[in-house]
Amino acid sequence: MTKVALAIHGGAGTILRSTMTPELEREYRAGLEAALKTGWEILSAGGSALDAVEQTVCSLEDFPLFNAGRGSVFTHDGKNEMDASIMDGRTLDAGAIAFVRNVKHPIELARLVMEKTPHILLAAEGANQFAKEMGVEFVPDEYFLTEHRWQQLQDAIASGTVELDHAAIPASAGGSDRTTEYTESTEQERNPKSKIRNPKSLGTVGAVACDASGNLAAATSTGGMTNKKFGRVGDTALIGAGTYAENATCAVSCTGHGEFFMMGVTAYDVSARMKYRGIDLETAARQTIERLTDLGGEGGFIAVDTSGNVVLPFNSEGMYRGYKTKDESSVDIYRD
Amino acid sequence: MTKVALAIHGGAGTILRSTMTPELEREYRAGLEAALKTGWEILSAGGSALDAVEQTVCSLEDFPLFNAGRGSVFTHDGKNEMDASIMDGRTLDAGAIAFVRNVKHPIELARLVMEKTPHILLAAEGANQFAKEMGVEFVPDEYFLTEHRWQQLQDAIASGTVELDHAAIPASAGGSDRTTEYTESTEQERNPKSKIRNPKSLGTVGAVACDASGNLAAATSTGGMTNKKFGRVGDTALIGAGTYAENATCAVSCTGHGEFFMMGVTAYDVSARMKYRGIDLETAARQTIERLTDLGGEGGFIAVDTSGNVVLPFNSEGMYRGYKTKDESSVDIYRD
Repeated sequence: MTKVALAIHGGAGTILRSTMTPELEREYRAGLEAALKTGWEILSAGGSALDAVEQTVCSLEDFPLFNAGRGSVFTHDGKNEMDASIMDGRTLDAGAIAFVRNVKHPIELARLVMEKTPHILLAAEGANQFAKEMGVEFVPDEYFLTEHRWQQLQDAIASGTVELDHAAIPASAGGSDRTTEYTESTEQERNPKSKIRNPKSLGTVGAVACDASGNLAAATSTGGMTNKKFGRVGDTALIGAGTYAENATCAVSCTGHGEFFMMGVTAYDVSARMKYRGIDLETAARQTIERLTDLGGEGGFIAVDTSGNVVLPFNSEGMYRGYKTKDESSVDIYRD
Repeated sequence: MTKVALAIHGGAGTILRSTMTPELEREYRAGLEAALKTGWEILSAGGSALDAVEQTVCSLEDFPLFNAGRGSVFTHDGKNEMDASIMDGRTLDAGAIAFVRNVKHPIELARLVMEKTPHILLAAEGANQFAKEMGVEFVPDEYFLTEHRWQQLQDAIASGTVELDHAAIPASAGGSDRTTEYTESTEQERNPKSKIRNPKSLGTVGAVACDASGNLAAATSTGGMTNKKFGRVGDTALIGAGTYAENATCAVSCTGHGEFFMMGVTAYDVSARMKYRGIDLETAARQTIERLTDLGGEGGFIAVDTSGNVVLPFNSEGMYRGYKTKDESSVDIYRD
């Protein structure tokens, strides 16, 4: 049990203590703690890292305040489209799905892609058809938070100036301007409603674990971008960008402005630095966050190695996060 | 001009001299040479690596014997669905598309994603809608090779035992069995027609370049897998897996059994080895191919660095490939 470790995240971004209500903070902490408990029960009973990250992410997908599963944001046409990926550090096998609708636990479907098909990533109609053939649990549209319900929640918890947006995108550091929305921005000018800042708009959930056998696994799940169009696939569905696990190095799950994690191949970058530079997880993680910052990207990640070390670095104002080892346990939201 | 270099591929797999006809070999060589000429004219006129790889891949997309653009294979429902990606090593900006139909040059659309949207990867209906809004050139279904036409070509060039398949997948080296097709295999039992070995079934085309300014770029394009179902996305659409370019290291374009390139994050792995181990392109490329082989994957890649060094490694029987520098030029197909 000395090596056993579990870490989770529920998204990173502009999360400020000054704009959080005590009630909302309590809700977030409860959601993170419930997820940690789910995964830790599996790991402490000798279960696999793979099972632990899958079930931990299921718990996070059930929690309505994170942008994944039940709490997924709405696409331009008012639907929920979800992406998820999972990777087994023992075999390097992986599974992922993109644009899945009405599936209760997208991470379970990602695992089925890994175990039941010769493929790694299934997207769009094909992924939904696969979900039906696999018999996973489907839920009606009403299962997902409606805009109306979300606004109710906002009204209930916020003063008029509450700023919950943990997804504000900073100005790009250079190169192309990924902060300029293409048609979305045009649409926003026409439709003032879409200007409402959505506190879930770039959130993601994820889990990484080291089990008693020293096996690593990583899992990530998201409800995508609010009002997204054009079939944008982010880093969450992509092995190497948003998710990576390899027993020789580490397991990583990312959250933030996905395009920068794709350019930076961020999840794999942590592993590559450890293996090819021979440095430890903490040093590699710090260097990878520096690279992300240099690219102009905002966000963070969680990672574990086979010694049970845990890191939870980010360059944003905050990141919903938590971890548990044999001796320590913590749930945090803000930078300090 | 001393640094200027261009390399291309048209797919890797079981390509044996013993089963090739002189006519067909001549056709393949002509296709590769035409593509090299296209890119070299741009580079030698002082054009950018980005323009060179885009136009070189357009040339390969127009060539009917490679599985990309015009030569794309057919999905289960008899359509052509194409993936492509492009990356600018100067800025690390990138663009990619998946499941695009009736677009003449998918690589041009990938570049438009990079330059005209805040996203990197657009897939399925959204990508097709984006193509329409961008006004790219569309072609009717008849533009793509029909099965009938393909069979005609087969009959014309082959003896009864010709084995052109450059996509036979070897037994997996371990871990999960990615050689067992899920529903595809069931379908094949029901439909003997789909058992016909298609010489294009896992092919890809790609180009990498270093321009006179020392900027790198990489581009990859594919027509996907024959008879594919379930919306499988392969490595060609994925930055880090099938395509990567960074001026500090190298530009890489991969071809082969995509899932292994996704697990191995193969394109970025070459760059990471160079940067984090401080080794040269040739050594890094050899190590990355060894890793691919260890994972059980078959295929290869092309890569250039900013000194104009070129490598074209593969672990399969052959790879359609070519390169050109100020002093050298070569087009090759077989291992030896």
